[in-house]
Amino acid sequence: MSQSFLPPTRLLMGPGPSNVPKRVLEAMARPTIGHLDPVFVAFMDELKGLLQWVFRSDNTLTLPVSGPGTAGMEACFVNLLEPGDKIVVCRNGAFGQRMVEMSERIGAEVIVVDQDWGRAVDREAVARTLAEHPDARVLAFVHAETSTGAVSDAAALAALAIEHDCLSIMDCVTSLGGMTLEVDDWGVDAAYSGTQKCLSCPPGLSPVTLSERAAEKIRARNYPVQSWFMDFSLVMNYWGGGGKRAYHHTAPVNALYGLHEALLILKEEGLESAWRRHAETHQQLKRMLEGLGIEFVVPEGERLPQLNAVRIPAGIDDAEGRRYLLEEHGIEVGAGLGPLAGKIWRIGLMGETCRPESVTRLEQGLRGLLGR
Amino acid sequence: MSQSFLPPTRLLMGPGPSNVPKRVLEAMARPTIGHLDPVFVAFMDELKGLLQWVFRSDNTLTLPVSGPGTAGMEACFVNLLEPGDKIVVCRNGAFGQRMVEMSERIGAEVIVVDQDWGRAVDREAVARTLAEHPDARVLAFVHAETSTGAVSDAAALAALAIEHDCLSIMDCVTSLGGMTLEVDDWGVDAAYSGTQKCLSCPPGLSPVTLSERAAEKIRARNYPVQSWFMDFSLVMNYWGGGGKRAYHHTAPVNALYGLHEALLILKEEGLESAWRRHAETHQQLKRMLEGLGIEFVVPEGERLPQLNAVRIPAGIDDAEGRRYLLEEHGIEVGAGLGPLAGKIWRIGLMGETCRPESVTRLEQGLRGLLGR
Repeated sequence: MSQSFLPPTRLLMGPGPSNVPKRVLEAMARPTIGHLDPVFVAFMDELKGLLQWVFRSDNTLTLPVSGPGTAGMEACFVNLLEPGDKIVVCRNGAFGQRMVEMSERIGAEVIVVDQDWGRAVDREAVARTLAEHPDARVLAFVHAETSTGAVSDAAALAALAIEHDCLSIMDCVTSLGGMTLEVDDWGVDAAYSGTQKCLSCPPGLSPVTLSERAAEKIRARNYPVQSWFMDFSLVMNYWGGGGKRAYHHTAPVNALYGLHEALLILKEEGLESAWRRHAETHQQLKRMLEGLGIEFVVPEGERLPQLNAVRIPAGIDDAEGRRYLLEEHGIEVGAGLGPLAGKIWRIGLMGETCRPESVTRLEQGLRGLLGR
Repeated sequence: MSQSFLPPTRLLMGPGPSNVPKRVLEAMARPTIGHLDPVFVAFMDELKGLLQWVFRSDNTLTLPVSGPGTAGMEACFVNLLEPGDKIVVCRNGAFGQRMVEMSERIGAEVIVVDQDWGRAVDREAVARTLAEHPDARVLAFVHAETSTGAVSDAAALAALAIEHDCLSIMDCVTSLGGMTLEVDDWGVDAAYSGTQKCLSCPPGLSPVTLSERAAEKIRARNYPVQSWFMDFSLVMNYWGGGGKRAYHHTAPVNALYGLHEALLILKEEGLESAWRRHAETHQQLKRMLEGLGIEFVVPEGERLPQLNAVRIPAGIDDAEGRRYLLEEHGIEVGAGLGPLAGKIWRIGLMGETCRPESVTRLEQGLRGLLGR
């Protein structure tokens, strides 16, 4: 019964994971070494530099959290929020909702700025809310809402946080590497991402960066961070640099090899070139979808290039249509989440997947599905 | 400056990671597929079966937590403890201390049963403490203390928990796959492990299993679990089986390929055979070390076969000696932690590393170091 698992080869056009380049897979298959080996410690320093580069940040506290994006997300919230702190959360999709739930579990007082799913966060509404709540400590928002395909003006929201003396937490799980993102220029205090989107690694790591303001908040906390595993004051001693590492937990050595290689690939292409490739391939996808009469959920101007939410074509069953694309064409597209379940599909064009050939193959699949 | 990272090949004889077989590394390099792909969902069911097999348990709630052993550890504590709950923690090393710290952060009332580092937990002391605290809800202990190389009588401790109507949490990070371990026969309620010890995978996943009694406790909680990421009531819907998976977080797909392959390798050998191999290779190591006059920290009868704490030989500098073994012989041995730092080395014989050839190579290294 039990045999080695030989996965099929898929074209991964869902909300993540995206396709992983051979080079990254091969890097992960290199021999495991000790996480405190001097060679590995030097590697960690280099990896940190690459993460600073992709985040466009000089933040000292920049590291890959040893868990998926959700772990990096929770790490930011539990470190920057204390029980009783007031936080303003922008909720325009499933990941904004998750921010609310995490903040509540910390015992924070949560003020929600709601927006329709599929729309960008409303800057004016956020500004009004921050003005009404001058005691708010944190503003949290999602740059690229993976559940709806909407982008919000992260620069403007981070600026509002500064203006109102809040720390900002930015979810950039789906944006990092796929579109303009400037942690330092925008003045974002905490940003977390995932590896399985535009960085084209397997899932399992969460790159995180925190500003000096955020680090100060952590140092000045009244209560210990509720999570020992996620406590950045402990993790900092491990990823802190300077050659001396205090053991905290065992780093996922081979996954880090993969992330390092993926960042090298991105660096060879150039970050702005990768952003441009995502924007251009999105235009190609848009023309293709419009040619087939398939409609976008998000209004033009608020759309993510790398994650395209579209209405399920009339007459097509959600699960059956996705099964057809997967089994007959080897293409994965994503289902809708929450209120959009059964109504939309999410078409990813992230990282390695973001190529003209992917659009061409999807067009063939969709034509087969629609009988055209 | 930035180039692909080509790690050296090491013989990993520290406290983990252990050496990873080529088959496992190759499995991890297979193409990434979607974590909700039907093929992957079927794979998850098979992996769950393999984990039940290695834990010797029929527990429905058996899964690999998407993070290192420390994440699986914290997941057990935050799910089974609520603020105000009384817990008895057996502390005979660094990981018992970590249990105390995690429990305190949850807001539990922590009663500690201390034992000297390097000794097994004292069953009688635990029995007395449980009798003195009839309102204790949880008993937590470490089966195989990675920081000292001592094994405790997990069967007896789990029996005490049942007798005193407590749930038991067992750390089996270093024991799983390397020595007798019977989750169901012993009546353990929650056990967590790591992949980078006797399972010989890279670090990054934490196999966990919870009894029906533990699942009932989670369902009957008064407060939500403080961690959203680690909340088993949410994770259960994702790993729960039955074909329908609710999205919770993105599973670390390729790391799971590796774990699956590692468990297959173990199954081909047979679990009892692997336990025997660890016991026999330990005897070989013991003879070799005694031949060189190197002393064990832990009294005979309380020693782990797979992790051997020894006094640093007289006249040898801790860091310099380990550097020599690493650089001149390609062998990693582990340093001491906490009060044992600078006094001991930890010699791992775990999983793939646990071969007669490893002992032979280490002997050469030690002879070179000692000039004999």
